[in-house]
Amino acid sequence: MTAMQDRRRELVAQHGEPIAIVCGAGSLPFTVSEAAMKQGRKVLLFALRGWADPQRVAAYPHQWIRLGAYGRFRRLARAAGCRDVVLIGSLTRPTIPQLWPDFGTLMILPRLARLFKGGDDHLLSGLGDILHEDGFHLLGPHEIAPSITMPKGMLGRSQPNDRDRADIARGLALLRATGPFDVGQAVVVADQRVLAVEAAGGTDEMLLHLAELRQRGRVRSPANVGVLVKAPKPEQDQRVDLPSIGPQTVEHAARAGLAGVAVVAGSVVVAEPDRIASAADRAGIFVAGVGADGTV
Amino acid sequence: MTAMQDRRRELVAQHGEPIAIVCGAGSLPFTVSEAAMKQGRKVLLFALRGWADPQRVAAYPHQWIRLGAYGRFRRLARAAGCRDVVLIGSLTRPTIPQLWPDFGTLMILPRLARLFKGGDDHLLSGLGDILHEDGFHLLGPHEIAPSITMPKGMLGRSQPNDRDRADIARGLALLRATGPFDVGQAVVVADQRVLAVEAAGGTDEMLLHLAELRQRGRVRSPANVGVLVKAPKPEQDQRVDLPSIGPQTVEHAARAGLAGVAVVAGSVVVAEPDRIASAADRAGIFVAGVGADGTV
Repeated sequence: MTAMQDRRRELVAQHGEPIAIVCGAGSLPFTVSEAAMKQGRKVLLFALRGWADPQRVAAYPHQWIRLGAYGRFRRLARAAGCRDVVLIGSLTRPTIPQLWPDFGTLMILPRLARLFKGGDDHLLSGLGDILHEDGFHLLGPHEIAPSITMPKGMLGRSQPNDRDRADIARGLALLRATGPFDVGQAVVVADQRVLAVEAAGGTDEMLLHLAELRQRGRVRSPANVGVLVKAPKPEQDQRVDLPSIGPQTVEHAARAGLAGVAVVAGSVVVAEPDRIASAADRAGIFVAGVGADGTV
Repeated sequence: MTAMQDRRRELVAQHGEPIAIVCGAGSLPFTVSEAAMKQGRKVLLFALRGWADPQRVAAYPHQWIRLGAYGRFRRLARAAGCRDVVLIGSLTRPTIPQLWPDFGTLMILPRLARLFKGGDDHLLSGLGDILHEDGFHLLGPHEIAPSITMPKGMLGRSQPNDRDRADIARGLALLRATGPFDVGQAVVVADQRVLAVEAAGGTDEMLLHLAELRQRGRVRSPANVGVLVKAPKPEQDQRVDLPSIGPQTVEHAARAGLAGVAVVAGSVVVAEPDRIASAADRAGIFVAGVGADGTV
């Protein structure tokens, strides 16, 4: 935590140059922008066309860019004197026109192609290297806005019981084992049995599939037993790919018959903590921020 | 292999006493029975009501039992002089009446309940212990009928290419990592990316879900890339829970857009090798029996 505080002091010292905040979909880009401004930093939003919310973007200094236009980003960010860069917000299913490379992107295409071979982790941490070579400094959104990550403790009123705590510990151990394989960031463990492992498709798809298997009687484990456990991969570059949960995650976990959701505090983004807490209370399940070792 | 051959010689020497073959669904119980008889052993089939095929059971000495009737099994098996026991065939979705315990089962219920807590591996290897205490000797079906497992090499005409071989190696390494957690026995790896990890629900459900995610555009990886890799869990008791593939597995792998299927030779059961080979050739995908280290 102290390293992060040092970094924040440093950020404040550099408040002359705006942070380039590359914005995908959702409300997180604006939460991060507000946090940066509260620390006395200027911001310049690079709004990704097709994802960033135009109405909310309009309230900040901004430029619109296509996802494929790295050349344009580099030119505009340099002209504005940006050095620090944050990538934040979701980027589901880009279309071909959005990905169409501009000249600057064309120049780095061979490197991008190589990065694509190694799985998500490779690709994302490789982007950090490319930015670095171009004189930028990639920061994690949680370095600028620690409040966007899950705090330790509960959101909502429910608490995990002893069985849930044991399931959380087993889930975290499994995630540590699968981490080197760049698999998903989430698993479901019910009374020590592994019910689901996230791979391609993401957390919500995993939960919906589990709910469906249950409905069809293909998975039979009692209701209100089992925990969705989510953690960053051990080798994950937390600057570009923090896992996240939202109110929908909680609703899907409840639909899958689980007792709760546990995420590693400080390294999983919670999009809207108040809405998560009320979703948890409505469903009667817990949402816990736990230590990386499973301490609740 | 020599230990297995020794064991077979020993079996032949004991041909006076029939092997108790506890039969679930499918054709494997009869393949195993034939193999035992070819080695000069007598057999006594314990046909599980609701699963075993009545027409085929009728051709062998047999007794019908309910799944819950361990007491009846023990009494009849002892009366027939059985010592060796083999459990073979599938047992999907038992109903409550089928599970209803008889007196002998009631006596072991507290132990069964404890076994249920630890996941499938625990439960199944625990059954071996219970049989042992009652004077029986649990054998793996492949110890009696090695021909029911996948041979090394190909079923059908297609061969894995270099990318497929690399995917097979990665899949086996991932299965080794998840083994201690009693997760599934199968994963899908496409160009080094993990697309799916089997947990509750089984291999077919995993492949169908992957096919569906692909159709909905939630997973985008090129067609005819990726391998279903299947292996016994490292800590699995191979006497009671050998993984298996059938023609349907091949059809589902093709539907999920994969290039092929790879299983560990000698420790994965192939229900109907000829039908698997023709399903593979029809779909134009490979089915490979590989070494536990991934050698093809």
